[in-house]
Amino acid sequence: MAGSVFGKNLKISTWGESHGEALGVVIDGFPAGMELNSGDIQKFLDRRKPGTSSVTTSRKESDKVEILSGVFEGRTTGTPISLMVRNTSQRSGDYDNIRNIYRPGHADYCFDEKYGFRDYRGGGRSSGRETIGRVAAGALCSKLLSSMGIEVMAFTRSIGDVCIDESRFDKNCILTSATAMPDAEADKRACEYINMCREQKDSTGGVIECRIKGAPVGIGDPVFDKLDAYLSHAVMSIGAVKAVEIGDGCAVSARKGSQNNDAFESMNGHVQKRTNHSGGILGGMSDGSEIILRAHVKPTPSIFRTQDTVNSEGENVSVNIHGRHDPVVVPRAVVVVECMCAISLLDLMISNMSSRADYITSFYGREKK
Amino acid sequence: MAGSVFGKNLKISTWGESHGEALGVVIDGFPAGMELNSGDIQKFLDRRKPGTSSVTTSRKESDKVEILSGVFEGRTTGTPISLMVRNTSQRSGDYDNIRNIYRPGHADYCFDEKYGFRDYRGGGRSSGRETIGRVAAGALCSKLLSSMGIEVMAFTRSIGDVCIDESRFDKNCILTSATAMPDAEADKRACEYINMCREQKDSTGGVIECRIKGAPVGIGDPVFDKLDAYLSHAVMSIGAVKAVEIGDGCAVSARKGSQNNDAFESMNGHVQKRTNHSGGILGGMSDGSEIILRAHVKPTPSIFRTQDTVNSEGENVSVNIHGRHDPVVVPRAVVVVECMCAISLLDLMISNMSSRADYITSFYGREKK
Amino acid sequence: MAGSVFGKNLKISTWGESHGEALGVVIDGFPAGMELNSGDIQKFLDRRKPGTSSVTTSRKESDKVEILSGVFEGRTTGTPISLMVRNTSQRSGDYDNIRNIYRPGHADYCFDEKYGFRDYRGGGRSSGRETIGRVAAGALCSKLLSSMGIEVMAFTRSIGDVCIDESRFDKNCILTSATAMPDAEADKRACEYINMCREQKDSTGGVIECRIKGAPVGIGDPVFDKLDAYLSHAVMSIGAVKAVEIGDGCAVSARKGSQNNDAFESMNGHVQKRTNHSGGILGGMSDGSEIILRAHVKPTPSIFRTQDTVNSEGENVSVNIHGRHDPVVVPRAVVVVECMCAISLLDLMISNMSSRADYITSFYGREKK
Amino acid sequence: MAGSVFGKNLKISTWGESHGEALGVVIDGFPAGMELNSGDIQKFLDRRKPGTSSVTTSRKESDKVEILSGVFEGRTTGTPISLMVRNTSQRSGDYDNIRNIYRPGHADYCFDEKYGFRDYRGGGRSSGRETIGRVAAGALCSKLLSSMGIEVMAFTRSIGDVCIDESRFDKNCILTSATAMPDAEADKRACEYINMCREQKDSTGGVIECRIKGAPVGIGDPVFDKLDAYLSHAVMSIGAVKAVEIGDGCAVSARKGSQNNDAFESMNGHVQKRTNHSGGILGGMSDGSEIILRAHVKPTPSIFRTQDTVNSEGENVSVNIHGRHDPVVVPRAVVVVECMCAISLLDLMISNMSSRADYITSFYGREKK
Repeated sequence: MAGSVFGKNLKISTWGESHGEALGVVIDGFPAGMELNSGDIQKFLDRRKPGTSSVTTSRKESDKVEILSGVFEGRTTGTPISLMVRNTSQRSGDYDNIRNIYRPGHADYCFDEKYGFRDYRGGGRSSGRETIGRVAAGALCSKLLSSMGIEVMAFTRSIGDVCIDESRFDKNCILTSATAMPDAEADKRACEYINMCREQKDSTGGVIECRIKGAPVGIGDPVFDKLDAYLSHAVMSIGAVKAVEIGDGCAVSARKGSQNNDAFESMNGHVQKRTNHSGGILGGMSDGSEIILRAHVKPTPSIFRTQDTVNSEGENVSVNIHGRHDPVVVPRAVVVVECMCAISLLDLMISNMSSRADYITSFYGREKK
Repeated sequence: MAGSVFGKNLKISTWGESHGEALGVVIDGFPAGMELNSGDIQKFLDRRKPGTSSVTTSRKESDKVEILSGVFEGRTTGTPISLMVRNTSQRSGDYDNIRNIYRPGHADYCFDEKYGFRDYRGGGRSSGRETIGRVAAGALCSKLLSSMGIEVMAFTRSIGDVCIDESRFDKNCILTSATAMPDAEADKRACEYINMCREQKDSTGGVIECRIKGAPVGIGDPVFDKLDAYLSHAVMSIGAVKAVEIGDGCAVSARKGSQNNDAFESMNGHVQKRTNHSGGILGGMSDGSEIILRAHVKPTPSIFRTQDTVNSEGENVSVNIHGRHDPVVVPRAVVVVECMCAISLLDLMISNMSSRADYITSFYGREKK
Repeated sequence: MAGSVFGKNLKISTWGESHGEALGVVIDGFPAGMELNSGDIQKFLDRRKPGTSSVTTSRKESDKVEILSGVFEGRTTGTPISLMVRNTSQRSGDYDNIRNIYRPGHADYCFDEKYGFRDYRGGGRSSGRETIGRVAAGALCSKLLSSMGIEVMAFTRSIGDVCIDESRFDKNCILTSATAMPDAEADKRACEYINMCREQKDSTGGVIECRIKGAPVGIGDPVFDKLDAYLSHAVMSIGAVKAVEIGDGCAVSARKGSQNNDAFESMNGHVQKRTNHSGGILGGMSDGSEIILRAHVKPTPSIFRTQDTVNSEGENVSVNIHGRHDPVVVPRAVVVVECMCAISLLDLMISNMSSRADYITSFYGREKK
Repeated sequence: MAGSVFGKNLKISTWGESHGEALGVVIDGFPAGMELNSGDIQKFLDRRKPGTSSVTTSRKESDKVEILSGVFEGRTTGTPISLMVRNTSQRSGDYDNIRNIYRPGHADYCFDEKYGFRDYRGGGRSSGRETIGRVAAGALCSKLLSSMGIEVMAFTRSIGDVCIDESRFDKNCILTSATAMPDAEADKRACEYINMCREQKDSTGGVIECRIKGAPVGIGDPVFDKLDAYLSHAVMSIGAVKAVEIGDGCAVSARKGSQNNDAFESMNGHVQKRTNHSGGILGGMSDGSEIILRAHVKPTPSIFRTQDTVNSEGENVSVNIHGRHDPVVVPRAVVVVECMCAISLLDLMISNMSSRADYITSFYGREKK
């Protein structure tokens, strides 16, 4: 299998199941010398924590991170950084009735077919809790990017039919609104919609957008590891994401070239684009404009209605799902998308450092002095 | 950099520029014993060849493949398969005027920033000709998948606003229509639209869909190498693709869970899904239904209008693009999407062979007899 | 950096420093369905534990393993297996005086040059304790190999000038002798030699041999991932190993072809070799004979004599090393060599499962029934 | 399989069989902007060419390299560099009699077991000609290293019992002597010995040493990708190598710590070691001293005596090998060892460029101006 390691020079290796002992991540290749304390990570983890608003599950998960290695006297050492969060609020009993049943919209059936059996408690490795490791690793990458003036910022663009209005865009609102929308008014309507879904024992999907400001030009390895391909891999690997768009995304397919090309222009010796249909990426490399990505997230498959399905004996049965589930995963997944983008960008920025022979010779020339 | 190698167990390493000596691919890890001749590959390459219809460029490229290694007495040997196509119809002179100019919608500027200079002839490594290596490798993978009853089939879903009608879906039409549409009527209208764009010195985008029938259940490595994440990486790495959807894709974000969940049902002991909103993938693993992916392709950036841009001196200039360019790349990119999906699926199928301890022990138990 | 992940299909990601919170490993790609409890792992860890005999350090390290993920109801689930050992017996004070001093034979200077600073306590990441993760991962691989009748067995071949005598080879002695020698008489003399070294405030090196019985023919990926190249990488990556030999190793360079070639012979339809100079590997693939590897281990650099060196200010100083150090690391490193060989072999055995097209088609043919 | 790709940031993908159309390599990740022409590569290939002296095979192989991609206007572009050598002097008929016979000391039997059949002509992929791709790639790496004042130099240390004398070490002699020995007198004796072996229809082995001067301190990724582990992997992957030593290598196992530790000393503010038992590597990282590696090469298994073996039917038979074979491969393998060391070192030097956070921030800080 070997599908739980991500990255080229920066490798993150996540582990853990929803109802196991703990979850975590090992980050190999993170550079030495960055100041780091658990608070830097905790503040990202708290953004994906449930129970913080009316629109998430009522489960309480403290999700306290422990730094187990790779940090010495407050700085990263260049050796693997191991981060762990203990599971504390698991109620495995909620899952006894689905031990042998394949929930619609979940991976239960696929797990059984692939591995012969599965940890049926809380989705096991396919739980949303799997993203804890991603967020912990992303917190480190975001901190380093931030020190270079690069801002990676994700937010909720829409939930159901409720979409934000760009004219009301308020960045501060992302961290304070229940839905992670940057628009207080849309947030209010989205909350109402979510609560209506919940009352109907139903759930909803939504769209997450990520914008990256300040990235250098030329990041991305042409051909297979294009920046957009790499970001797509990273974001599509988040459970529940069913589509990824870069820049104007799907809209470009119905357009003409004269509408879609972004004219370059020079302003005070600085090259820029007049428009940004490309979403900051041309030929798989960052083009200096804001990088824009959207992820389409499906509605939570765990709904509290009786559903038709089959069991592991191949019999037609009906299933009622118990437990505490978010009626929408979008608000909590925002930080996950942001973190996967930060990890991917930093990894490709490292790769880019050896793109020219003179980068290498001048690096080692300096060294020798 | 190292961005021109793709795959885990099946590694393809593509090389070559539009106006260089040749282009090709080395396939490492392809299994031994499959019958292979150059015709198997040529028939895929011919699908991406230009000059075959009214809606592609008038360039003639014979694109004859040579098998240089890895095949002995008509069968693959298990060692690297090296495939090469010589460039023969290059007119580098067409590019002299853009040597120092950054074409809108192209990667020229990014290349210069990343590498310090670039091969400006025909887009160099960012040319559509780069996909020759992908298609040659995909031809092999498709042949092996086909021998297992797995069919990977891509087609043009829409061009501009002209979309196929499912009720007229005719598979045979894909290989015979000028647009690679499976609907002769839509093909006719699309051709008209393309020709109108061409007359307007403009270009158009479109949507390519790929469907995979017969894939086993459980393919895909949960977490980072989910089947959908892997396919997205592969397809988004094709130049001009700006969005990738799996199954119902973008549509799911506005849906409720009760609408989006696919009920499982058992028919004569066989587990299947009543609907296929998931596009054949749950939790990153194939679920037994048809796998469905859509790629949104931007309009060709090379249009024959005067465009504003900058040159490498940072001066505002206008540019007129010469040469022979497709007014739409979609028809020729269909086989590229199909091939990238075939490569990705086969690679993850190989990975899946060791997902269970008893698979390994029974494989080697058999060996020892 | 990214140097703490090893493997192709079976990826182990180790982490942890000598005086940090804990050490551990994440194993990604281990197949599902193998029975596993902590005892299976503990018994391997106990073989590298210090304080168990007169010839190792007097430090007491309980080194109790915790299984944090990837095991459910006593079986591996196919998802990442996270294993952790807490550090409990660390006396960091022993290292205060070397905070700014580069110990001869140690990596202190290299760490400072590479990373700008270092965790100076107990060697940090270069401590022998780093091997805990390797041994924990190797225990799982050995168990699976063993279920297929494959035995990976390492032992001490020599310490200083004291070498085992093949005629007295007693496998049971490996686990019971203080030196891990399979020869009680040699063990006795080696212990005397070690104690003499200790009294002289000195240390000694030695040779570890690993033999693998029952491996299938054809394991190893020709060219760069030859079985011998892969084993060498794995074993040379263990701190203190300075040479690796396969089969007759160094001796072959002074030999003639007629002396070194192993004649094949057929016995009752079974192909075998009359001799085994090759050490079970030809052309980078296992040849059916016993696989034999030897690792040459340098004497412990931490000796209790005053040594000349420099400090981080570039001044010439003398250093006296404190703490509790093994006068020889060989006996405790035996299980590390064994584990690295088991991991490497299993990884390449997985790789080999897709070497032929008919292996793949028959695997998935079976699946579809 | 996937064993023909080597490297982390610098990936080389070699291909080709002894009697196929051609052999070659694709180098992905080589930095842009280095001047390169075919002469730079040809001069390395000529060092492994046969027929240049009395002690190699009489086969004539012109081995002219073609640069197919990745170079534009005399400089590398940062995109994959494809290099090819056509096979011209193949006499496949020499191998007809071994089509079904397993030659002692060769991989024939292993190939058949692994892949089901094999290209029996000239060893196929296990031919010494496979190293053409390695040498072509190494030529580029050596050129870049050389521009940084780093010299990678391999030579023949011994053939049979004839060893060079350090007091007569003459670097210029390496390229001019028939054996690639840096000692004219030893070369003379070695030639006599080789000719004697040839007359006896026998062959001989030898030792190749590689020394690297001027490498920066700190190269190597601790734990699994230690510089010594990486070099061992690279060198042990060359056919016929059966042992690899770093620094004093095997000799350290019989030594005491007080004899083996290299004292550090400061000379005019420069840290150096008084001795170099470590061979320039401590804790897996370069320590500033000369890096020293030795490879032990087995005698050519193709000897012109009747040998006992089995055929593919499992019958005991005798075999007489025809064709033109080197009585010793050492002189021609010297450049292969040198090239594998150059590739490995450069790859790890690239990896090292991101070892510190401030390296990354200052690199991109510079970029933004």
